[in-house]
Amino acid sequence: MVRSLVFTTQGRLHSRNIDLFLMPTLLSDTNLFLWVDLENSTPEENKYVLEDVFHFHPLSIEDCVQVSPSPKVEEYNPKEDDKFSPYLFIVIHAVDYSRKDGVFATSELDFFLGKNYLVTYHTVPLKSITVTEETAIKGTMHLARAPDRVAYTLLDSIVENYKPALDELSLEIAELEQRALQHPARDILNKILQIKKEVLHLRQIIGPEREVLARFARGEFKLIRAHLVPYYRDVYDALYQISDLAQSYYDSLTAILQVYLNMSSNQTGEVVKLLTMITVITTPVMMIGTWYGMNFQNMPELRWKHGYLVAALVTFASTLATYLYFKKKRWF
Amino acid sequence: MVRSLVFTTQGRLHSRNIDLFLMPTLLSDTNLFLWVDLENSTPEENKYVLEDVFHFHPLSIEDCVQVSPSPKVEEYNPKEDDKFSPYLFIVIHAVDYSRKDGVFATSELDFFLGKNYLVTYHTVPLKSITVTEETAIKGTMHLARAPDRVAYTLLDSIVENYKPALDELSLEIAELEQRALQHPARDILNKILQIKKEVLHLRQIIGPEREVLARFARGEFKLIRAHLVPYYRDVYDALYQISDLAQSYYDSLTAILQVYLNMSSNQTGEVVKLLTMITVITTPVMMIGTWYGMNFQNMPELRWKHGYLVAALVTFASTLATYLYFKKKRWF
Amino acid sequence: MVRSLVFTTQGRLHSRNIDLFLMPTLLSDTNLFLWVDLENSTPEENKYVLEDVFHFHPLSIEDCVQVSPSPKVEEYNPKEDDKFSPYLFIVIHAVDYSRKDGVFATSELDFFLGKNYLVTYHTVPLKSITVTEETAIKGTMHLARAPDRVAYTLLDSIVENYKPALDELSLEIAELEQRALQHPARDILNKILQIKKEVLHLRQIIGPEREVLARFARGEFKLIRAHLVPYYRDVYDALYQISDLAQSYYDSLTAILQVYLNMSSNQTGEVVKLLTMITVITTPVMMIGTWYGMNFQNMPELRWKHGYLVAALVTFASTLATYLYFKKKRWF
Amino acid sequence: MVRSLVFTTQGRLHSRNIDLFLMPTLLSDTNLFLWVDLENSTPEENKYVLEDVFHFHPLSIEDCVQVSPSPKVEEYNPKEDDKFSPYLFIVIHAVDYSRKDGVFATSELDFFLGKNYLVTYHTVPLKSITVTEETAIKGTMHLARAPDRVAYTLLDSIVENYKPALDELSLEIAELEQRALQHPARDILNKILQIKKEVLHLRQIIGPEREVLARFARGEFKLIRAHLVPYYRDVYDALYQISDLAQSYYDSLTAILQVYLNMSSNQTGEVVKLLTMITVITTPVMMIGTWYGMNFQNMPELRWKHGYLVAALVTFASTLATYLYFKKKRWF
Amino acid sequence: MVRSLVFTTQGRLHSRNIDLFLMPTLLSDTNLFLWVDLENSTPEENKYVLEDVFHFHPLSIEDCVQVSPSPKVEEYNPKEDDKFSPYLFIVIHAVDYSRKDGVFATSELDFFLGKNYLVTYHTVPLKSITVTEETAIKGTMHLARAPDRVAYTLLDSIVENYKPALDELSLEIAELEQRALQHPARDILNKILQIKKEVLHLRQIIGPEREVLARFARGEFKLIRAHLVPYYRDVYDALYQISDLAQSYYDSLTAILQVYLNMSSNQTGEVVKLLTMITVITTPVMMIGTWYGMNFQNMPELRWKHGYLVAALVTFASTLATYLYFKKKRWF
Repeated sequence: MVRSLVFTTQGRLHSRNIDLFLMPTLLSDTNLFLWVDLENSTPEENKYVLEDVFHFHPLSIEDCVQVSPSPKVEEYNPKEDDKFSPYLFIVIHAVDYSRKDGVFATSELDFFLGKNYLVTYHTVPLKSITVTEETAIKGTMHLARAPDRVAYTLLDSIVENYKPALDELSLEIAELEQRALQHPARDILNKILQIKKEVLHLRQIIGPEREVLARFARGEFKLIRAHLVPYYRDVYDALYQISDLAQSYYDSLTAILQVYLNMSSNQTGEVVKLLTMITVITTPVMMIGTWYGMNFQNMPELRWKHGYLVAALVTFASTLATYLYFKKKRWF
Repeated sequence: MVRSLVFTTQGRLHSRNIDLFLMPTLLSDTNLFLWVDLENSTPEENKYVLEDVFHFHPLSIEDCVQVSPSPKVEEYNPKEDDKFSPYLFIVIHAVDYSRKDGVFATSELDFFLGKNYLVTYHTVPLKSITVTEETAIKGTMHLARAPDRVAYTLLDSIVENYKPALDELSLEIAELEQRALQHPARDILNKILQIKKEVLHLRQIIGPEREVLARFARGEFKLIRAHLVPYYRDVYDALYQISDLAQSYYDSLTAILQVYLNMSSNQTGEVVKLLTMITVITTPVMMIGTWYGMNFQNMPELRWKHGYLVAALVTFASTLATYLYFKKKRWF
Repeated sequence: MVRSLVFTTQGRLHSRNIDLFLMPTLLSDTNLFLWVDLENSTPEENKYVLEDVFHFHPLSIEDCVQVSPSPKVEEYNPKEDDKFSPYLFIVIHAVDYSRKDGVFATSELDFFLGKNYLVTYHTVPLKSITVTEETAIKGTMHLARAPDRVAYTLLDSIVENYKPALDELSLEIAELEQRALQHPARDILNKILQIKKEVLHLRQIIGPEREVLARFARGEFKLIRAHLVPYYRDVYDALYQISDLAQSYYDSLTAILQVYLNMSSNQTGEVVKLLTMITVITTPVMMIGTWYGMNFQNMPELRWKHGYLVAALVTFASTLATYLYFKKKRWF
Repeated sequence: MVRSLVFTTQGRLHSRNIDLFLMPTLLSDTNLFLWVDLENSTPEENKYVLEDVFHFHPLSIEDCVQVSPSPKVEEYNPKEDDKFSPYLFIVIHAVDYSRKDGVFATSELDFFLGKNYLVTYHTVPLKSITVTEETAIKGTMHLARAPDRVAYTLLDSIVENYKPALDELSLEIAELEQRALQHPARDILNKILQIKKEVLHLRQIIGPEREVLARFARGEFKLIRAHLVPYYRDVYDALYQISDLAQSYYDSLTAILQVYLNMSSNQTGEVVKLLTMITVITTPVMMIGTWYGMNFQNMPELRWKHGYLVAALVTFASTLATYLYFKKKRWF
Repeated sequence: MVRSLVFTTQGRLHSRNIDLFLMPTLLSDTNLFLWVDLENSTPEENKYVLEDVFHFHPLSIEDCVQVSPSPKVEEYNPKEDDKFSPYLFIVIHAVDYSRKDGVFATSELDFFLGKNYLVTYHTVPLKSITVTEETAIKGTMHLARAPDRVAYTLLDSIVENYKPALDELSLEIAELEQRALQHPARDILNKILQIKKEVLHLRQIIGPEREVLARFARGEFKLIRAHLVPYYRDVYDALYQISDLAQSYYDSLTAILQVYLNMSSNQTGEVVKLLTMITVITTPVMMIGTWYGMNFQNMPELRWKHGYLVAALVTFASTLATYLYFKKKRWF
């Protein structure tokens, strides 16, 4: 699907979802700004828009169409025989609407940002795109209708969308912490390691994304007008805080793991204590019982009048002593 | 609540808690220096002071009003159509008066530092603000009444306030160390991990705060007069030492954790030793007792005159031998 | 074996596998581009081609002929008395066709890249070489027939060939994860450590390889024409992603190891639980059985009419109580 | 206590322990060099010397009088209204004469190094100061009597004094290693962790001290004459080696800890082996003894002529078999 | 012992082991190149050669004569009143011929490299020196007879000599890996930790040595002619690979340690399993045997005709059931 929005440089909405064959004409009109959104588009649409209309560099088209696991930004400046004007090619990862199957899923969004156009490419519908489109159409400020400004709004929205996913992670981690302390069952380990994996995955995405935005925040690109740089810096700051959060989640999970492992080793320790206690406490009964079960003909104690009583008392006393010893040592 | 202090450039106190509607007039008077403190102010007050009086950049206003987990400093220089004069926007975190619920709480303080004004913004009452205000009013040195000097006094006071919290942490760590060695109970692990979390939290705040102050210490900002740079460097040094302390606390906690885990594994080892010892020591009684409890008709030992005595002596001798063996091996 | 391909600067195929003695003549013809491939060549061939025809620097010849464990790139510029023209010497490691004996094998490929020649040197047949040769011969674009372009195609093909090996690793890791959770047998540890070793080995190769390609991607070398730099950057990106993958494999293996170790320590815990349970449950039988096995003449209980019944009931009741206690504590 | 030494620029000793009131006069004489040593001086002495005589910057005086946990060097250049000449302020930590209470104690030494003076400040007597003073007085070379040269001699002496403390640490570590292997008692863990703490403390001091000396070694300060820079580099090298030693001590302690933990877990393993062995070896006696202790009226074996003999032989044979099995498995 | 070699700048051998008193004369002759080798020389020889003949800077002489644990390179440029010409002072560590007492021993080699001389200083005989001397004398290429070239040959030879030691380490590590898997005895831990220590020691030497050679490889020093820089880069590469090897050895040892610790904890787990199995399997015999060993007068089972048979069958059946249960659970 190819959606498009055309604005005048004065910021008025010119037209919407124009015919693909009008694109080259509109693009060459320097009074207009074009936003073309390719969502799950066909190879033919891709070829027409990316190659024939915008004449992007073949490598950036390849990178756009393929799946790229790591965010990046590249500046393309035309050489003599190239037909395109200078543009930025940006790969960024938006977080998906919901955590499906307990996996922190992300989906790629590619930008081509030129002087008077913005081309966005993605395979699944993205909330950030819809929201930004609405803002751009309804927006009262004409300022919001320039390619670098729309790109900022998109990036800001993408970064904002990370936050609910982080909140969910935070809740799960708090619950795990509770469980690790109160009922350290065997399945908790896998849960801990799985969430750790997700946090690691998050950090792997955020890391290069921060580097990409740092370059915008430093005002490295001429295509971004100087007075918009503080806005990009703001997005960078938000990402920086997400990255800090991810790090603190990671540290929490490491601590929870330690609690769990200690709890589980404590359990074995407790079981061994119980075994030892039972063994020790039954020792007097077993010793005396076994001893006087012997069948020697000449065992004088057996014939004493109070032999049995004495044996019972000795057994009881030593059992009691053992019991009190453990009580004092706080074994139970 | 909006508090304000007005000084002349000669350092005399001009007026206090002035009417909000006088602010623009006083601000435009180049002979005056304005300190406006917004404490838990209403959105209307914020809008009036930050936007209408000082015309700050919308992004810095947004950052100020929102909660920012990480300290930062940003320089804003006006463009043609901006109404503000150059200013520094600083986000810093002061430590709270008391550690509530065992959590090392911090609260945000935002600064706007201009040529002839200082605007501070915070949601809870801060000791540093009160103390600095008093110093500024009562201070005999007129030097103390310039925006960059007041900002230094504030920062210095904030950093100083970290120290009591650190002392408390230090005491708790020393107590934990004692307990881990003498009575390694199960609850100590959670205590260790909780304090470790707090120290990590402290490090997370101190880290970016140091970076912010390093920029002041290097004299990066024109709004800070050169002869004040050594003062900022001094605050930076104090923060550096706090950061060192936090690192050493962290290392101590790691060591305490190791002691605790070893102590707890040693306990299990001791219990197993006890079990083994009891088993081994009772073995002669059990073996001989069980053996001569058999009912074979033809067991000559049973009919010997001293059979019982011999059995008792053999049992006693081997039990004693086992006992002495463990004694020699220092099992108890 | 010495294979060679000669193209004209217009990109037409001039000749193939030419006589070695023609090489100097063809090399001095500035209208031609020479690709010489030395595969498992004899020392005489090496000497003739590398020294007598191309006059390469003795150090680069030595590095080429010897095995170098780490990739590198070096620029050689001739001094007055040197006979060679400027060239790049590149050592890169291609992954082998198949993982033999569970070892992630790589084989070295050396390049000499000059203005009008490319010399490749390797000891085993490489798929990348064969494929690139075919592309160069059959290729319709004359552009593909320049030394820097052919070198790019080779590097790209080498990096692409890493991917199947990575997929295989990924499968094995997923299988290990499954097994560690379901049946943590003793042999799994060695398997984990062995694959970890391979991933480490992969990282050791990829690391310097990335550094080599980064220098190409930055356009550091004059021998690579400017418009080819984005292509090299693309290879660099692919390598970067492989390096990211390797890191994530490594993290997964560390987590699997933790699962395994915990599972195996859990098993011992379970065994100890079983031992304790058996001991505790049999305790009543053993105590009462042993006690009334004593042979005292005066044991009134033995003569009671329902003595045996009472003993049996007490034993049964306490065994049942113990059983229910463990049931409640969820020991089984 | 205030000690002072006055030399002429020709290197002759001019006077010693001069009256405090003469200081300003002598200081203004450009033909003289003054070394003032404040040892455990009174606040009045400090104020007079540091403020009234030398007019040091208030911040450096504050840093000097207070305890600073981390070494540093700062360059103070006077502004228009400052009365002092350019000087370096250095904080360094000397190691104490003896390790008291097993703690690696350090004491602070502050330097003010000017063109024609050196002021040293410390609270406890320091060997380095005494030794350097003697060298300066008795020294035959007039070169040794310049502020930058005396400062070098002091720093060199301080660094040299670290070595005996390191040797002592080295001995203790070697002893610990021995004990961990031969008799891994419970107290060794605390000893290991305590020495690890000291080594960490040492590293914390050495680290910033190295940074301070690196700045001297790079010849960053104009107050140090160029031909003295190699000398400072030499001190830096010595410190670098100490820092290397500290690192290797740290690594050794980590290894010793691992040995200890393994030894202690091995011990439990051995105890469990013993328990198992005893249980298994006594099993035949217990089984047969218990079995034939039964009182069934109809137990034919009991009435066999050689019943007892057979039982005894079976018991003996199976016990022997068990014993030989463990012997073969090398359990003891 | 002082050995010397004199070459003409044309590369011919001029004289050998010349009289010490001729040195100053030969040194001042710009047509000659002097290589003086001090091996285990007397203090008088050192003083004469290093101070009186070559007038080296006192600090470099001190560094040369003393033992320096870490390699370094320093450039000395004469000041007005210095008598020496510019020279490089290099400290490098050669590996000893054999690993004595299982310790990876190194010995120091100091170089003074000037425009027309090379002074080498070492306390023990070094293979590298002997070999290089022979090469220099017999060498057919006059090129080999310049100070910077001889220094290269020496460094190359030193680095080459590391390789046999590394091969030996590699063999020992492979053997340890085998043993850790097959027979994890207690002594293996110490062996692992000892070799780890040696590898750490190796890394500590290689690290700074690489930094020293990196400076040569970058062509930082004017005393090394430009066309020799690739040769030094080659030595640097060799060292880089050794450093990579050391890292991989270290990783291997860490993995072996993990295998060993797991194997040893597995052993304890197996022992506990055996104990539990024996306890469980003997339970039926013990329970029934003890129960019917009771002496109650009224135990009807004892008087049943087939009482004993039933008891034996029940015991046998339940023992068999337990046995089959463990068999199924694969406990043995």
